[in-house]
Amino acid sequence: MSRFAGREGPIRLGMVGGGSGAFIGAVHRIAARLDGKYQLVAGALSSTPEKARDSAAALGIPRSYDDFTAMAKSEARRRDGIEAVAIVTPNHMHGPVAREFLKRGIHVICDKPLTATLTEAKRLQQAAEKADALFVLTHNYTGYPMVREARALVASGALGRLRVVQVEYPQGWMAAPVANKQAEWRNDPARSGAGGSTGDIGTHAYNLARFVTGLKVEALAADLSEFVEGRQNDDNAHVMLRFEGGARGMLWCSQVAVGHENSLRLRIYGETGGLEWAQENPTELWHTPLGEPKRLITRMGAGAGPEAARVSRTPAGHPEGFLEAFATIYSEAAEAIFAHRAGKAAPEGVTFPGIADGMEGMAFIDACIRSSRRNAAWVVP
Amino acid sequence: MSRFAGREGPIRLGMVGGGSGAFIGAVHRIAARLDGKYQLVAGALSSTPEKARDSAAALGIPRSYDDFTAMAKSEARRRDGIEAVAIVTPNHMHGPVAREFLKRGIHVICDKPLTATLTEAKRLQQAAEKADALFVLTHNYTGYPMVREARALVASGALGRLRVVQVEYPQGWMAAPVANKQAEWRNDPARSGAGGSTGDIGTHAYNLARFVTGLKVEALAADLSEFVEGRQNDDNAHVMLRFEGGARGMLWCSQVAVGHENSLRLRIYGETGGLEWAQENPTELWHTPLGEPKRLITRMGAGAGPEAARVSRTPAGHPEGFLEAFATIYSEAAEAIFAHRAGKAAPEGVTFPGIADGMEGMAFIDACIRSSRRNAAWVVP
Amino acid sequence: MSRFAGREGPIRLGMVGGGSGAFIGAVHRIAARLDGKYQLVAGALSSTPEKARDSAAALGIPRSYDDFTAMAKSEARRRDGIEAVAIVTPNHMHGPVAREFLKRGIHVICDKPLTATLTEAKRLQQAAEKADALFVLTHNYTGYPMVREARALVASGALGRLRVVQVEYPQGWMAAPVANKQAEWRNDPARSGAGGSTGDIGTHAYNLARFVTGLKVEALAADLSEFVEGRQNDDNAHVMLRFEGGARGMLWCSQVAVGHENSLRLRIYGETGGLEWAQENPTELWHTPLGEPKRLITRMGAGAGPEAARVSRTPAGHPEGFLEAFATIYSEAAEAIFAHRAGKAAPEGVTFPGIADGMEGMAFIDACIRSSRRNAAWVVP
Amino acid sequence: MSRFAGREGPIRLGMVGGGSGAFIGAVHRIAARLDGKYQLVAGALSSTPEKARDSAAALGIPRSYDDFTAMAKSEARRRDGIEAVAIVTPNHMHGPVAREFLKRGIHVICDKPLTATLTEAKRLQQAAEKADALFVLTHNYTGYPMVREARALVASGALGRLRVVQVEYPQGWMAAPVANKQAEWRNDPARSGAGGSTGDIGTHAYNLARFVTGLKVEALAADLSEFVEGRQNDDNAHVMLRFEGGARGMLWCSQVAVGHENSLRLRIYGETGGLEWAQENPTELWHTPLGEPKRLITRMGAGAGPEAARVSRTPAGHPEGFLEAFATIYSEAAEAIFAHRAGKAAPEGVTFPGIADGMEGMAFIDACIRSSRRNAAWVVP
Repeated sequence: MSRFAGREGPIRLGMVGGGSGAFIGAVHRIAARLDGKYQLVAGALSSTPEKARDSAAALGIPRSYDDFTAMAKSEARRRDGIEAVAIVTPNHMHGPVAREFLKRGIHVICDKPLTATLTEAKRLQQAAEKADALFVLTHNYTGYPMVREARALVASGALGRLRVVQVEYPQGWMAAPVANKQAEWRNDPARSGAGGSTGDIGTHAYNLARFVTGLKVEALAADLSEFVEGRQNDDNAHVMLRFEGGARGMLWCSQVAVGHENSLRLRIYGETGGLEWAQENPTELWHTPLGEPKRLITRMGAGAGPEAARVSRTPAGHPEGFLEAFATIYSEAAEAIFAHRAGKAAPEGVTFPGIADGMEGMAFIDACIRSSRRNAAWVVP
Repeated sequence: MSRFAGREGPIRLGMVGGGSGAFIGAVHRIAARLDGKYQLVAGALSSTPEKARDSAAALGIPRSYDDFTAMAKSEARRRDGIEAVAIVTPNHMHGPVAREFLKRGIHVICDKPLTATLTEAKRLQQAAEKADALFVLTHNYTGYPMVREARALVASGALGRLRVVQVEYPQGWMAAPVANKQAEWRNDPARSGAGGSTGDIGTHAYNLARFVTGLKVEALAADLSEFVEGRQNDDNAHVMLRFEGGARGMLWCSQVAVGHENSLRLRIYGETGGLEWAQENPTELWHTPLGEPKRLITRMGAGAGPEAARVSRTPAGHPEGFLEAFATIYSEAAEAIFAHRAGKAAPEGVTFPGIADGMEGMAFIDACIRSSRRNAAWVVP
Repeated sequence: MSRFAGREGPIRLGMVGGGSGAFIGAVHRIAARLDGKYQLVAGALSSTPEKARDSAAALGIPRSYDDFTAMAKSEARRRDGIEAVAIVTPNHMHGPVAREFLKRGIHVICDKPLTATLTEAKRLQQAAEKADALFVLTHNYTGYPMVREARALVASGALGRLRVVQVEYPQGWMAAPVANKQAEWRNDPARSGAGGSTGDIGTHAYNLARFVTGLKVEALAADLSEFVEGRQNDDNAHVMLRFEGGARGMLWCSQVAVGHENSLRLRIYGETGGLEWAQENPTELWHTPLGEPKRLITRMGAGAGPEAARVSRTPAGHPEGFLEAFATIYSEAAEAIFAHRAGKAAPEGVTFPGIADGMEGMAFIDACIRSSRRNAAWVVP
Repeated sequence: MSRFAGREGPIRLGMVGGGSGAFIGAVHRIAARLDGKYQLVAGALSSTPEKARDSAAALGIPRSYDDFTAMAKSEARRRDGIEAVAIVTPNHMHGPVAREFLKRGIHVICDKPLTATLTEAKRLQQAAEKADALFVLTHNYTGYPMVREARALVASGALGRLRVVQVEYPQGWMAAPVANKQAEWRNDPARSGAGGSTGDIGTHAYNLARFVTGLKVEALAADLSEFVEGRQNDDNAHVMLRFEGGARGMLWCSQVAVGHENSLRLRIYGETGGLEWAQENPTELWHTPLGEPKRLITRMGAGAGPEAARVSRTPAGHPEGFLEAFATIYSEAAEAIFAHRAGKAAPEGVTFPGIADGMEGMAFIDACIRSSRRNAAWVVP
C-alpha cells in the first residue's frame, strides 16, 4: 500500500538541483506548476549550501536542505513530506540522488539522460524496479500533442509497414567554444558521461523515433565527431539505424550546426503514407496518405484525434509549446501518482517515459561510442 | 496607501466566471499559475450557484461564492482576502463586476473587450480612474516576446517613418452556424455587445497594431458583413485605417475564413524597413531593412533585444506560445501589483494593457458599426 | 477567312518595344520561345532607330524597322510577314501600335495595362472588336497551373457560395526614389497613365481575383497614397471590394512594402471551403474543405486536376515559375491562332486574357482614382 | 581547329532518344530553346524507326534518322550538320551514342548518370578526353542561381572550414510498384545500371554536395534497401560521408518516401556559418552567419552576388524553376561551344558539369553498392 494512500490534492514536490542560473530546473518548476497538480515545498537546489538556501528563498520554497540525502531522510519522516522529487542535477548525480528517494518510496521525476555511465544506469534500474515508487524520465518531447497524434497514426496502421525513419536534432549553440554553465558540465565526461551531443540531444531524438514508431532498433552504425577544439565528447553524430521488421533510418544530432536552435525533427515513411513533425513548429503534423495530397493536421484542428486532444489545453490556433509539452510529462506522471495513492494502475491513455526508456537511451549512447570506435561498425544497442 | 501594503509573496486571486466548460477561464487560471506569482483562492465561477460551487470544488478553489457582489464584499473584509480578481464572464458583465471590486481596492484583471456597450465602458473607465487599484485588460497578444521585439524595433526608428500597416485576424470556426457555449453568447448582442468579429477578435488586431506602431488611428472606414444566416453581429469586417502622421492601413477580421484557426498577423512598412509577425508562429519576427536581405529574428536568438528577453522563460528554439504570452500579462500585472503594495510605480519595462486600451477597443467597435451603417464612410474612432 | 489560312508550323512573330535594357521585352521573347510555337522574325524594338537596329542585330532578329507603322505596313504585304505582334512598349503606346496591326489582320499580344487612358482603351476596344485578329493581353499570372486549378475548384462548387476574397500584391522596389528605366516611365502619367501601383500591379491582382472567382465587382472604395516624395502616381492602394452575389473583399497593392519582392497572393473563402495561393511559391495551392484538414495541392501532384495539367510541362516537384506561366499565355494564344488559321474556334480549355479583361483593368484603375478623389466613396468600376 | 570555326548564330542541335512519352527529352528540348542559343534540326528519337519518324514530325524536327549511327555519320558529313547532340536515352546507351558523335567532333550534351556500368564509363571518358568536342553532363541542379550563390558563399570563406554536409533527395513516386515507362527501365539493371535510387537521384545529390562544397569525398559507408517487392535496384540509400579536410556528412536518397515529390535539399555547416537550400523552393537560400540572425537570400534580391545574377533571367520575386536551371546548363554549354568555334576557352564564370563529374557519379554508385554489400563498410569512391 502506498505511503501516500488517502492523500488528496496536489502532489507535494521536492527538487534536487536547479539553483539560480540553471536552465532545466526552471523549466521543471514551470512544468510542475502549469497544470496545478504539484506544489513545490522542498529543495536541495545546489551542492553549495549557501546557494541552495538563497535559491530556495528566492523561489519561495519553504524547506531548503544542504544536501539531498538529508532531504530524502527528513522528508520521508515528515507527515507532510514530499511525495515526489524532481532531479535536475548534472547527469552523474541522477543515479545517486534518485536511489535515495526511490528507496524511501518517494516518486522520482528525473531529467535525461538517465545517468552518466551504463553501470550507474543499471544500479538505478534495479533500484527503480524494486521501489514502490514511480520513476519518470523527462523525455519531454513525447509530451507534444502532435507527437502523440503521430504515434497514434502509426499505431493505427495508417502508414502501413514502416520503411524509413529519419530523425535529426541539430543545434548550433556549441559551434564555437562556449563558456557558460550549461556548456561546461556537458563537456566534462565525469559529470555528463561519455556522450556529448549523443547524450544531450541524441537520446531525445532516439527516444522520439522509438516512441512514435514503436519499433526496436536492432543495430546501429555511428560516426561521431568532436569538431570544436578542446571538446572531449562528441558534438556531432551521424548514425545509421536498422529497426526490427526491416525499416531503416538515420539519426543526426549536432551541436555545431550553425543556424539551428533546437531543430528536433522526425520523418517516417511507410508503405501507405508519410509523416513529418518538427519541434520548432510543434503544432503541425504533416501526413501524406499514399496517392493523396499532403494534409496539415493541427493540434485540436480537423483531423486530429483524441490522443492529441487528451494532452491539449487550448483550442486550435493557440500555440502550445515546449513548456506545455514538458508540463504534460508532469501531468501524466501526476495522474499515475494519483492512481498509485489508491493502489490503482494509471488511467487509460496516461503515458510517460520511464526507466526502460532511460536504459534504452543509455544503450544508445554506449552503442554510438562503441560503433564509432570501431569505425562505424554495426553494433547492437 | 495600499490596502495590501506590507503583503509579501504570491497575490491572492479571485475569479468571476470561468466555470466548467469555459475556455477563457481555464486560460486565465493557467496564465496566473505559470509564473508562480498568484494563488487562486476564491471564485464566483458561474451565475448558477450549484455550478459555481461544483466548479470551485473541482478546481480546488477554497472559497466559492454564489454571486460576485457577495464575493467582493466578503473578500474585502477578510484579512486573507483576495488582492486581485480575474473577470472572465461574457462581455456585458465585465463592467458591473469590475466596479464592485475596484471600488473596494481590489485589482481587476479583465478579459476583453472592455464591456458590451460604450456607455457601460465609460462608467467603468470612471470607476477605474477613481479606484486605488489597477485595471488590467488581457489583450494577451501583446505578451508575445516577438511582439515586444517588434514594438522596440519600431520605437528604435529602424523602420523609419511608418507608411503602411496591415493587420488581419481571420478565423474559420464560425463559418457554419455554431451551437456551443462559446458561439452562443457571442451571437447575442445583449451579452457580447454590438460587435461580432470586430469585438471578439478585431479589438485584438486593432490593439496589436496600436501597441506595435504606437500610432493613433485618426479615421477608419468599415464594411461589416453577417454572412451566416441568423447571425446578429458581424462575422467579417473589412476596415481601412488612417493613422496620425500619414500612415495608412487595413484591418481584416473574420470568423468565416475557412482554413484559418487563429491567424492574427501584423505587417508594418516604413521608409527604411518592413516587419512581419504571425501569431500562429509567434517565435518568428521577420525584419527587412531597406536594401538588405530579410532576417529572421527569433525569441532569444541572435539579433533579438532585451524587450523580448524580459518576457521569455526559455532559450531560443523552445517554442513559447499562447499560454506563455497570456501568462506574461499576468506576470507584468503582478510586478505592478507588487510595486503597488509598496506605493511605488511599476518597475521600468513592465507593460500591460489597461483601461485606456479598453476604451480604444470600444471606440473601435463603435466606429466600425457607425461607419458600416453609413456605407463605409470615414469616421473618427 | 484568315489571311493566314493554310499556314503551318510556328507563328511568325514581330515585336514592338523591348530593346536592350527592357525587362518585359526579354520576358516576352523567352515566353514566345519556350514552347516552340513562335518564331521572332521582325521588330521595331525602340523608338530610337539606331537602338532598334542594334537590339535586333544583337537578338538575331532578321528584319528590323525604325518605326512600328512602317513595320505594320511592310509585314502585312510580305508573303512571309508576321502573323502576330508582341507589344511591349510603355503603356501609352499600346493602343496606337495595336491598332496599326489589328487593322491589318495581324494578331496582337499586348502587355498590360491595356492603355494609358480610358479614352484610348475604348478606341482600342473598338479596333479589336472589328478586327479579324486576336487580341491577347498578358495578364500572365492566369497562366500559372495552380491558378487554373484554383479557378476550377471554385467553378466546381467546392467552396460553395463565395463570401470573402482577399487579394494583395505588395512589392518593395519603389520604397525609395528609384532612378532606372523601369521606374522612370512608370512615374510619368503621360506614358503610364494615371494609375501607379494600381495600373502596374493592381490590375494584375484585380484580374487574378476576377479570373479565379468568376465574380464581377459591383463597387469598390479606394484609398490611394503617394508615399515617396516626387511620386506623381499612387504607390500604395487600399481597396475594398463588393462582388456580385454578396461576396466582399479587399485588394492591397503597394510598391513601397519593404521586404516584398513580387508577392501577389490570393485567398478565397466560401461557405464550404477556403483557398490560398501565392505567386512566389506558385506550385502550392492550399485548399481547406470545411471541417477537414488543410490540403496541399501541388502542380501535377495528387489531387490536382486536368486544368493544371493542361498547362504543365514537367512532373510534380519540378518547379515551374514565372516564365512558364508567361509562356502559357503565349502557348494558349498560339492554339487559338492555329485554330484561327483554319477558321475554327480555339480548342476547348484554351484560355487567355483578352480585350474584355483589358477594359476591366482600365475600369479598375479609373474607379480607384475616382473613388480616392472622393475620399474613398463607393464607385462602380 | 574546330570543325565549326567561323560559324555564327545558334548551335544546330540533334537529339538521340526523347521520342513521344519521354519526360527528359521534352525537358532537354525546352532547355535548349529557352535562351535561343540552339536550333533542333535532327533526331533519332527512338530505337523504333516508325516512332522515331512520327515523333520528329510531331516536333517539327526537319531530319529524322532511324538509328543514331546513321545520324552521326550523315550529320558529320553535311555542311549544315549538327554541331551538338543531346543524348536522352536510357543509361546503357549513353556511352555508345556519345562515342559515335564525339569521335566526329560533335559536342555531346548527355543526361546523367554517365553510363550504366563503370567499364562503359571509362571507355566514354577516354573518348571524351580524346575528342575535339565538349562533353556536357546535365547535372541540372547546378544550374540553379541560388546553388551558384551557395557555392560562391562557401568559396568566399563565409562559412569557414566546413564541418557537416547534409544532403538528401527523397521522392515518393516509386513507393508502390510503378508500371510506366519512366519506372520500367529504371528497374532494369541492364538498362539503368546497378544503381537504383543511387543512380537516378543519388548522383544528383552527390554532385550537388560536391559542386557547392568543392570538397572531395574520401570515404563513404552505404546501407541500400530494396523496399518494394520485385525491385531489383535500391530504392532507398542511407550513406555516411567523410570529406577531405575532416568534414562529415550524410546523404539520403529515396524513391519510397511518400509525401515527397522531388525534395533535393542541401545543408552545410562550417565553423562560422550555415547554409540551407531546397530544390522545391529554389529561389531561397538561407544563410546564418555565426551569432547573427538567419538571412533569406533570394535570386536577384538584396545580398545575392554576381554568380547567381549571371544565370538569372528575371528580377527578384519572379520564380525561376527547374526548366530555367536546366536551360542554364544548355546556355553555359553554348557559351563554351561559341568559344570553341573560335578556338578559345569558355568565358570566365561559365560553369557546367562534364566528364569528370560523370566519372565521380559512377564512382559514387559503385562505392555505394560495394559498401552496402560489405555491410556498410567504409569504401573509397
